[in-house]
Amino acid sequence: MRVALGVAYRGGAYFGWQSQPGGQTVQDHLEQALSRFADEPIRTLCAGRTDAGVHGLNQVVHFDTSREREPFSWVRGVNRYLPADIAVQWSAFPPADFHARNHARARRYAYLLLESPIRPALEAGAVGWVFRPLDLEPMQAGAARLIGEHDFSSFRAAECQAASPVKTLRTVEIARRGAYWRFEFEANAFLHHMVRNLMGGLLAVGQGIRDPEWLGEVLAARDRSVAAPTFAPDGLYFVGPRYDAELALPERTPAMDWLP
Amino acid sequence: MRVALGVAYRGGAYFGWQSQPGGQTVQDHLEQALSRFADEPIRTLCAGRTDAGVHGLNQVVHFDTSREREPFSWVRGVNRYLPADIAVQWSAFPPADFHARNHARARRYAYLLLESPIRPALEAGAVGWVFRPLDLEPMQAGAARLIGEHDFSSFRAAECQAASPVKTLRTVEIARRGAYWRFEFEANAFLHHMVRNLMGGLLAVGQGIRDPEWLGEVLAARDRSVAAPTFAPDGLYFVGPRYDAELALPERTPAMDWLP
Repeated sequence: MRVALGVAYRGGAYFGWQSQPGGQTVQDHLEQALSRFADEPIRTLCAGRTDAGVHGLNQVVHFDTSREREPFSWVRGVNRYLPADIAVQWSAFPPADFHARNHARARRYAYLLLESPIRPALEAGAVGWVFRPLDLEPMQAGAARLIGEHDFSSFRAAECQAASPVKTLRTVEIARRGAYWRFEFEANAFLHHMVRNLMGGLLAVGQGIRDPEWLGEVLAARDRSVAAPTFAPDGLYFVGPRYDAELALPERTPAMDWLP
Repeated sequence: MRVALGVAYRGGAYFGWQSQPGGQTVQDHLEQALSRFADEPIRTLCAGRTDAGVHGLNQVVHFDTSREREPFSWVRGVNRYLPADIAVQWSAFPPADFHARNHARARRYAYLLLESPIRPALEAGAVGWVFRPLDLEPMQAGAARLIGEHDFSSFRAAECQAASPVKTLRTVEIARRGAYWRFEFEANAFLHHMVRNLMGGLLAVGQGIRDPEWLGEVLAARDRSVAAPTFAPDGLYFVGPRYDAELALPERTPAMDWLP
């Protein structure tokens, strides 16, 4: 039978999501835990791979198994074998052809940022950091120029394996609470490093180094070399995918209330 | 000259605040960084020592030095020598007789708690965890029985070195955001493990294991053995001390907006 899981993790200790020979990735730990719990080898496929240092709030995976278990025992039972900074949040039994990546209609990312003359300490690894003050309005004006279906080559990492650089960026929401900014992005899909590259651009505008129109010019250039540098992974969270409503897969996990 | 600093830290990696031969405490790291920056040995005295795993939002220390530096260079300069999870937040030059511990009129602690059938992952080490649902009203009713000047022996660790078990608990505020509860305590001073022991008691009431009156009985007994177990250190934050207003020492640090 096919099983879907939602997984939350802190990325700091891992070489990203995707399985590697060294075994120190989130996928490696999840598959080891699943295989121990099910007592058979289990391989997973996820909705969106994350880089080293990037966190997951509701990463979704699917896999097949011959074991029959109650839904919640795929949560509690597997969590027993996972490190303290990774935990399954929910499980579901979707149709046998459910595919965590191909069926995702949209993906959401959040970027959390500390704006302060002093670097983070308590929240080190969980936020990006700028010491120069940011202006909301120019960032919103710049973000508006990126919304829609575009060729995002200017915000694409050289090693990106996506078939096409054309993606539809649906929303960019920017809010602050105290010294913390929260940027939230939704698109049908993202290119490799796209959110971190967009953040680099938005911050150049927010700090007054560039004006909002410049972001439109960078987009139109379809050339990575004209854009701002890739911003730090520390504050990046894969909020999770969105699926068709009839699949009834949870889109929220408790940790979404943890972040400012 | 006398210098006062506010320090924020994540306690997970350290054997608490107080200096130890092994050197793996927050005080050890701070004093090493101060001594390197000032190029002379510096010893500090803090407002409230914290246990292993307990975090600091605005720990205050004082020390004497022969070096004359601009206030902000005691922040930026010292932070260069501190680990990523410890950072000086502010500095001030108080009167020469200022004493971080003796002059504190009050201390505040916060306890953050995840209420969920699933353990924390992303926020592991930064929150306590209960899987049974909590009821706000009984906890508030129980807390009301603890407010005021009392002998808190029932909530005092055996190894506590305070001269007297009589303390004045001024406020206990309880609020929730999503799956997260925030408990905030203010007292003139706290006994060793007092907040974690109070948390144990409040949670027994919040989960319906005990009724609110029981907390009053525990208090009256002045006997640690009748109280609930000491709760986990993970979600405990030393918010900071309060001083006389004329000292004009900062009571807020950015990380206070980080927490739910």
